[in-house]
Amino acid sequence: MKLGMIGLGRMGANMAQRLMKGGHQIVGFDPQAAARKDLEGKGAQTADSLTALVAALPSPRTLWLMVPAGEATDANLDALLPLLAAGDTIIDGGNSFYKDSMRRAKRFAERDIAYVDCGTSGGIWGLDEGYSLMIGGDEAAVERMRPIFESLAPAKDRGWARVGPAGAGHFAKMVHNGIEYGMMQAYAEGFSILRHKAEFDMDLQQVAEIWRYGSVVRSWLLDLTADALKKNPDMSGIAPYVADSGEGRWTVDEAIELNVPAPIITQSLIERLRSRDKDSFTDKLLSAMRNEFGGHPIKKA
Amino acid sequence: MKLGMIGLGRMGANMAQRLMKGGHQIVGFDPQAAARKDLEGKGAQTADSLTALVAALPSPRTLWLMVPAGEATDANLDALLPLLAAGDTIIDGGNSFYKDSMRRAKRFAERDIAYVDCGTSGGIWGLDEGYSLMIGGDEAAVERMRPIFESLAPAKDRGWARVGPAGAGHFAKMVHNGIEYGMMQAYAEGFSILRHKAEFDMDLQQVAEIWRYGSVVRSWLLDLTADALKKNPDMSGIAPYVADSGEGRWTVDEAIELNVPAPIITQSLIERLRSRDKDSFTDKLLSAMRNEFGGHPIKKA
Amino acid sequence: MKLGMIGLGRMGANMAQRLMKGGHQIVGFDPQAAARKDLEGKGAQTADSLTALVAALPSPRTLWLMVPAGEATDANLDALLPLLAAGDTIIDGGNSFYKDSMRRAKRFAERDIAYVDCGTSGGIWGLDEGYSLMIGGDEAAVERMRPIFESLAPAKDRGWARVGPAGAGHFAKMVHNGIEYGMMQAYAEGFSILRHKAEFDMDLQQVAEIWRYGSVVRSWLLDLTADALKKNPDMSGIAPYVADSGEGRWTVDEAIELNVPAPIITQSLIERLRSRDKDSFTDKLLSAMRNEFGGHPIKKA
Amino acid sequence: MKLGMIGLGRMGANMAQRLMKGGHQIVGFDPQAAARKDLEGKGAQTADSLTALVAALPSPRTLWLMVPAGEATDANLDALLPLLAAGDTIIDGGNSFYKDSMRRAKRFAERDIAYVDCGTSGGIWGLDEGYSLMIGGDEAAVERMRPIFESLAPAKDRGWARVGPAGAGHFAKMVHNGIEYGMMQAYAEGFSILRHKAEFDMDLQQVAEIWRYGSVVRSWLLDLTADALKKNPDMSGIAPYVADSGEGRWTVDEAIELNVPAPIITQSLIERLRSRDKDSFTDKLLSAMRNEFGGHPIKKA
Repeated sequence: MKLGMIGLGRMGANMAQRLMKGGHQIVGFDPQAAARKDLEGKGAQTADSLTALVAALPSPRTLWLMVPAGEATDANLDALLPLLAAGDTIIDGGNSFYKDSMRRAKRFAERDIAYVDCGTSGGIWGLDEGYSLMIGGDEAAVERMRPIFESLAPAKDRGWARVGPAGAGHFAKMVHNGIEYGMMQAYAEGFSILRHKAEFDMDLQQVAEIWRYGSVVRSWLLDLTADALKKNPDMSGIAPYVADSGEGRWTVDEAIELNVPAPIITQSLIERLRSRDKDSFTDKLLSAMRNEFGGHPIKKA
Repeated sequence: MKLGMIGLGRMGANMAQRLMKGGHQIVGFDPQAAARKDLEGKGAQTADSLTALVAALPSPRTLWLMVPAGEATDANLDALLPLLAAGDTIIDGGNSFYKDSMRRAKRFAERDIAYVDCGTSGGIWGLDEGYSLMIGGDEAAVERMRPIFESLAPAKDRGWARVGPAGAGHFAKMVHNGIEYGMMQAYAEGFSILRHKAEFDMDLQQVAEIWRYGSVVRSWLLDLTADALKKNPDMSGIAPYVADSGEGRWTVDEAIELNVPAPIITQSLIERLRSRDKDSFTDKLLSAMRNEFGGHPIKKA
Repeated sequence: MKLGMIGLGRMGANMAQRLMKGGHQIVGFDPQAAARKDLEGKGAQTADSLTALVAALPSPRTLWLMVPAGEATDANLDALLPLLAAGDTIIDGGNSFYKDSMRRAKRFAERDIAYVDCGTSGGIWGLDEGYSLMIGGDEAAVERMRPIFESLAPAKDRGWARVGPAGAGHFAKMVHNGIEYGMMQAYAEGFSILRHKAEFDMDLQQVAEIWRYGSVVRSWLLDLTADALKKNPDMSGIAPYVADSGEGRWTVDEAIELNVPAPIITQSLIERLRSRDKDSFTDKLLSAMRNEFGGHPIKKA
Repeated sequence: MKLGMIGLGRMGANMAQRLMKGGHQIVGFDPQAAARKDLEGKGAQTADSLTALVAALPSPRTLWLMVPAGEATDANLDALLPLLAAGDTIIDGGNSFYKDSMRRAKRFAERDIAYVDCGTSGGIWGLDEGYSLMIGGDEAAVERMRPIFESLAPAKDRGWARVGPAGAGHFAKMVHNGIEYGMMQAYAEGFSILRHKAEFDMDLQQVAEIWRYGSVVRSWLLDLTADALKKNPDMSGIAPYVADSGEGRWTVDEAIELNVPAPIITQSLIERLRSRDKDSFTDKLLSAMRNEFGGHPIKKA
């Protein structure tokens, strides 16, 4: 197929390349000229505006949106709406909030434009290994896009599927990321316990290697953790500071809204907030309270 | 009654004074001469050795032990054992682990010496307001000590009771401290949320004052928190570092051993550990993992 | 002052009575005739419609809204808007979400009607003991309402204050409830640990009584817990099912939005969800997973 | 090599078979005649007593212990001690507590008998896929046992290593299981959230399948979860009851002792306790407290 790729950052550029390897033709757009030039160097056609992009695509058009969730996505969609026609298809492959995707799908459906939400997992490895794709939206539209999904996924019949109506794809991806938070935190705590058992002076990378083969905790995340430990066994030069990119928060909110207890996913998010709260008012007040009732000494800042 | 007070630190000295106010005669012992001298200035007799202390007491003797839990307590008990006689009574008013108290009670019972474990709450306020006393041990022994408990408690018939056999007193105190951890953490988190809502620019001390009257969260800890916030609204000069003195850990271990889910008490302890883990290996590894799979930037140390 | 009380449920009726005791005149409205009749029996005037209520009040009018948060509040406000005039004042004493209160204050300000949000704590005890009132809104409007707040609070100068602009009162109340969740859970876990220590066979009510005097964990919630344990030491006939009324959820959402780690408040909410999730899919799946990898037996439903 | 396998349960019998496939000769012992007979049917020699087992092995002897941790292990070791001679080797492949392994290693070292602790992961899949082996103990002893480990592991040079001195193997396995608890809980919570989003009516098995290929959360546990969901999509007939076998508890205790915050591993254990606490006193008391202060209705048991 010939399709437009909007957003040529790390993810979008990689996906464009994987699609080209799969035999598709790509017209790429990104406001950054350098990003466009990079992709041209890899064999893609590019366009320097959304208008030019849309003009470069055969009708009915297919557009893959790979831009940051939220305002950037809405801005692109606002700009696209008047440029597109009935029968066209937009796929949002970014990390959008599923309720936004539901709203957007409805808005485009009014113009007979299909809007497909595709949760995409795979990170920087997807280019070579393929992406895991959780897809929401109209069944016929998803079926029309089959060749794209088959190329992006690790295999034609693996690692992708339509999981439900509009929003369902991004909902599944949101939960996926919540699980990821929990798994990461479980590994990190475990390695931290091993490291603090000074009397055993363990080689964490060696332990990770053992676990990679035959153990119940083997996983791709463990493979990557083993790599990270190999490169930097003491994590030196790395600040104890963990960012989060939104999906964890949504998962927590959603779990509460659905009355589903999700203590591990929730606490994993809180741990990330905690890693960034170096000057915790909570802890200072606790220290002051201990002093008030028990005369316990306060550690000075 | 005339009784010996072993350990004239903050807690022991205060309790000796409250007992004297209650009409009891105190013979105090502490290895620190300054501590003995202080108490003499408040009207107590003192002894400069355990032998001298025991010699200064009428038979059957009553000894109140107010020293740090663990080794210090065992060292004192080892030294006392050969000095005491059948019919004497030891009360451990410190924060001993209840299983230690059970073991000790058994050891002294073999010599017909009563061993009473008394969990003591009240902090630096107990001198004026009285102590809350949770008492374990032989019923007759506890009854013999009634005049002491009546004087230490906030009122003759309030704030003290025998709660069970040997160990039960310290068990109740251990759980008390677990609850205390949870309550403190709940308040501290709440005030932290208020403080971080910058747009409302709230006066935390004012909010604490409102809550002190009529609200569901009014408590003595809140009174103290209001004081702390009044003295130092921004907690300036205080490190976000919260010590723990053992009972919280025991409560967590015990809850698990009893198969009782105690998530809040447990997490409150973990938060204290976290406050002291400034260079968290867990967080560094999480940051490295995010970089491995998603290419997310690592914050430099 | 003469004021209208809208909503004569448990809270509204009690507050009306306390205001009358304070010398104020009340015109009460509730769609339930029985509720109106009850209040009439206590000396209040009532009205059988909002129109009649507004007509019965002198200008500028003062209306206290005490209805369930959310739709019921909006429905009343929609109905009131055309009935009121510039200079009138509405006080929302219910548990509204603070962002709703900000929105409503803005809407009424456009008509020069003051809208005050008042977080109210005190439960069924407020009638006799007074309410703790956290107030948000325009300073002048709050000052005009001073006589009302002075009567509702435990004392003229205690337990009430303006804590900030529109929304700040309900924000403070929301956080208050979050703290309450944490405190309750801490106590409940502690008593549960005591109860499960079968060898000590403790009298929980007795322990609660001891703690009420002199201990660090003394509080009003503990007083109430002691009462509950006295009435029903084994909690017999009570389902292990804990409702929640919304403020806890908002506190959790808000903490995350503000990047404030609030693990205890959050987990306390999750425990309530858990108490209602008797047929946990999570637990079933865990059991199935254990069977898959380890051949561990599954307990049959 | 020729070695004795003590304990022919699910794990021991499988490991004996895998060793035989690797070219080793097995003499099996189990108090259950049926278990011995089964293994004979698979080509092993057996012995009907520990004495006979020891007699059947060439000197220096090698014995692999695969019995439940705790008393069963100590009982076997007590019985073996007088039967063995200097130069013999015992490997404990069970889930022993690492401090027990340290104590035992010391005891046997006094008789010049090597004691190797080997944490074993792999469950019922190890027979075919190989076991992940974390080994503690004397370097020379571990080296002598190399042929055994090479056969049990998934590959000669993968999935096994000596990680430190006596106890280190079981310590690593303990932490491994803590991580496993956290990962399992993360997945289970995630699938539970998906399931409760009724409007999307997702096929959980399909989502699991997608995630198995290309996603960040792919793992062996996910493969097994997909299997479980395929066999029983609604988890029907399964009680929401999750057992635990000890290592999780030890991990939590150890983390606290080492001052390492491990909130996710800890809470995952607590969730298992919670799954078995159907008649939670904590929840009943919370319900009673809500009634006391707010008049909120109590749900009847």
